[in-house]
Amino acid sequence: MPHIDLPASPGLLGLLNRYPDTAGPLAALAESLLRGPSPLSVAERELIAGYVSDLNGCVFCAETHCATAEHLLGPDAGLVDRVRAEGDRAPAGARMRALLRIAATVRESGRAVTTEEIAAARAAGADDRAIHDTVLIAAAFCMFNRYVDGLATWTPTDQETYRRFGASLAENGYRLA
Amino acid sequence: MPHIDLPASPGLLGLLNRYPDTAGPLAALAESLLRGPSPLSVAERELIAGYVSDLNGCVFCAETHCATAEHLLGPDAGLVDRVRAEGDRAPAGARMRALLRIAATVRESGRAVTTEEIAAARAAGADDRAIHDTVLIAAAFCMFNRYVDGLATWTPTDQETYRRFGASLAENGYRLA
Repeated sequence: MPHIDLPASPGLLGLLNRYPDTAGPLAALAESLLRGPSPLSVAERELIAGYVSDLNGCVFCAETHCATAEHLLGPDAGLVDRVRAEGDRAPAGARMRALLRIAATVRESGRAVTTEEIAAARAAGADDRAIHDTVLIAAAFCMFNRYVDGLATWTPTDQETYRRFGASLAENGYRLA
Repeated sequence: MPHIDLPASPGLLGLLNRYPDTAGPLAALAESLLRGPSPLSVAERELIAGYVSDLNGCVFCAETHCATAEHLLGPDAGLVDRVRAEGDRAPAGARMRALLRIAATVRESGRAVTTEEIAAARAAGADDRAIHDTVLIAAAFCMFNRYVDGLATWTPTDQETYRRFGASLAENGYRLA
């Protein structure tokens, strides 16, 4: 049961519905960060979001964003499970592996990111914007995960629900209705 | 030195300047969360932000938001140092102590928040909105702290700079120019 009174919508959805003042900027942040211009593909950004959420143990966000990445990756959807199981050792390509490594470090602490991790990402082809977007996606999901779980929102347990969320977010993004 | 090329502005300021797409939603979130309607005073919200940032070791955010709280608290400014040193044992009033406790737990993990912590906050007079705002402020600063430190932005070391930032944020809030 949620810690506060919320509509019967899962995860972040009930919070956005009940608290519209903060919902606007939160949705705009997700739309800009995960759908706006970036050297990272939308699938790569969703995968970073799902991976960080998984490391944070936030089932709602992890399942939702991993399902979104799977929808976008289509025939390569199997990569999502590899990243969840193997992290930056998954066969995601050198640039993405280096960025997954940075994302995992940011999740622990911003202060933990090393110049070596940044240099490795650059050597693998990441530019300033790719590094920036990776750090901010990882940081933002450290917020979303805590918001969703800190208020004990409802977490669906069936994969079909997340497949539906993933397809919708892949096709429609994060703009509020 | 920052991990990416940034203007010579400290902490979050260089990031907002260089990456305007995400700056808009980030500033709007801070304005809504820290200045919008809430049962918590602006000083209480700034103090929660500063306290969480301190626990995360983010010097730029901790000094900035603690200075903002001090500016707003005026004669009671000494409370800020007590909270930084003693956390939820500081003489901040029963409701604020219970909310500081929740904020510290959210900082560790959203999943760590207990029904007992929520019940204690309610018993001390916190309503749904106060609990919501506390959880989201703590979560949001887990993002801002990681964004600022994960990219190794410039951290001023003199207190006078932070007193100036604090006075400006206390008086003008977070709307971008």
